[in-house]
Amino acid sequence: MSNSTYDKNEMGVQNNPVVSRQVKTRLPRYYRYLKELLDAGIYRISSGKLAKMMALTASQIRQDLNYFGCFGQQGYGYNVKYLFAQISEILGVNDKLTAVIIGVGNLGRAMAQSNIFLSRGINLIALFDKSEELIGKEISGKCIYDIENLEAFMKDHHVDVAVLTLTSSQAQPMAKRLESAGVRGIWNFTNVEIPKMKSVSVMNVYMGDSLMQLCFDIRQQTSDENE
Amino acid sequence: MSNSTYDKNEMGVQNNPVVSRQVKTRLPRYYRYLKELLDAGIYRISSGKLAKMMALTASQIRQDLNYFGCFGQQGYGYNVKYLFAQISEILGVNDKLTAVIIGVGNLGRAMAQSNIFLSRGINLIALFDKSEELIGKEISGKCIYDIENLEAFMKDHHVDVAVLTLTSSQAQPMAKRLESAGVRGIWNFTNVEIPKMKSVSVMNVYMGDSLMQLCFDIRQQTSDENE
Repeated sequence: MSNSTYDKNEMGVQNNPVVSRQVKTRLPRYYRYLKELLDAGIYRISSGKLAKMMALTASQIRQDLNYFGCFGQQGYGYNVKYLFAQISEILGVNDKLTAVIIGVGNLGRAMAQSNIFLSRGINLIALFDKSEELIGKEISGKCIYDIENLEAFMKDHHVDVAVLTLTSSQAQPMAKRLESAGVRGIWNFTNVEIPKMKSVSVMNVYMGDSLMQLCFDIRQQTSDENE
Repeated sequence: MSNSTYDKNEMGVQNNPVVSRQVKTRLPRYYRYLKELLDAGIYRISSGKLAKMMALTASQIRQDLNYFGCFGQQGYGYNVKYLFAQISEILGVNDKLTAVIIGVGNLGRAMAQSNIFLSRGINLIALFDKSEELIGKEISGKCIYDIENLEAFMKDHHVDVAVLTLTSSQAQPMAKRLESAGVRGIWNFTNVEIPKMKSVSVMNVYMGDSLMQLCFDIRQQTSDENE
């Protein structure tokens, strides 16, 4: 971790800031927007323009970014490349985290074939399943291992993130196994809410929730039209 | 829509309430938790107990639910079955919405094979792709149509929701086509932010954002341990 700590200080990032849920939620958005700017060849941006793009206020942007030690320059704005590097650092993109996928169903397979890990600096190192038909096969160059051998694998390989794309009923027992085996984070897609654990960060994702919000919005449209 | 409007009034739900983003985000959570309670055979719950389950305050629960005309009974609490029916109604679960999936890659296929639509009262009626190899095939009983025929299909079939699981570069032009063809909502997984449209509700989903929040949490753990 020494390299990483050194970078962090060099970047001027505060150590262990207590971050509100709202700010945390906005960080990946900053990452996305800054990447878009860079891809478009834009290397300098004012907080006002960035705010407009992101539908925030300029003062909110300044507040968020100052908070992490990312300061714009009066009359110049933000250096996009530098800011992107800072946000990447804060989000741990340079930490070379490793991940495994537990459950090679449709979603697990889709994730294994996407660049969702690689594009965020995460190394997907293995897939696990219990199905005899899948064990030993490869997806996008990643081997599918027998879930029985999870603990043995994790003794030999450092695993930071486990992606849970297995059956809901197995989510909770699997989380316990992963905790015992020393995983650091669980990205959970099973629709079963896994509670926070002492030494494991958990991110529960409910794909259906955003679908329901969309349905709600559609319903509101109808009410508007009927009035 | 007349049936639906009737149900809505009978349920005592306010027409077209202006709902804050926070409340809207919580509604699908209420739906999930109430379903869990029902599945567990729990038919009555106090706002205090529901609050504890959901990590909210009792007064926040009462405020959210009162807002939609869902009142608990003093000394009795909430009737879970009735409340679930109300929330379902508010979220449009009884509206018999229809959906199509645009782009039958890994994620599109995973969605087509899941019960994410059915379990929320949505009827998935078709899939679309441009690949000759896929057109005419079926996934879970749903036919894959040529994307060229999207407009013709939408003339013959009412489509409420389009799920975008196609290549990012095609997201924006496809959204325009869907708007012209009369879609009511777009559930967008392409990582390209589709801006709000006049007559189309849009829900942009960034799967990677939650992964980055998880990485951030993992990084915070490390800082905590190092102190």
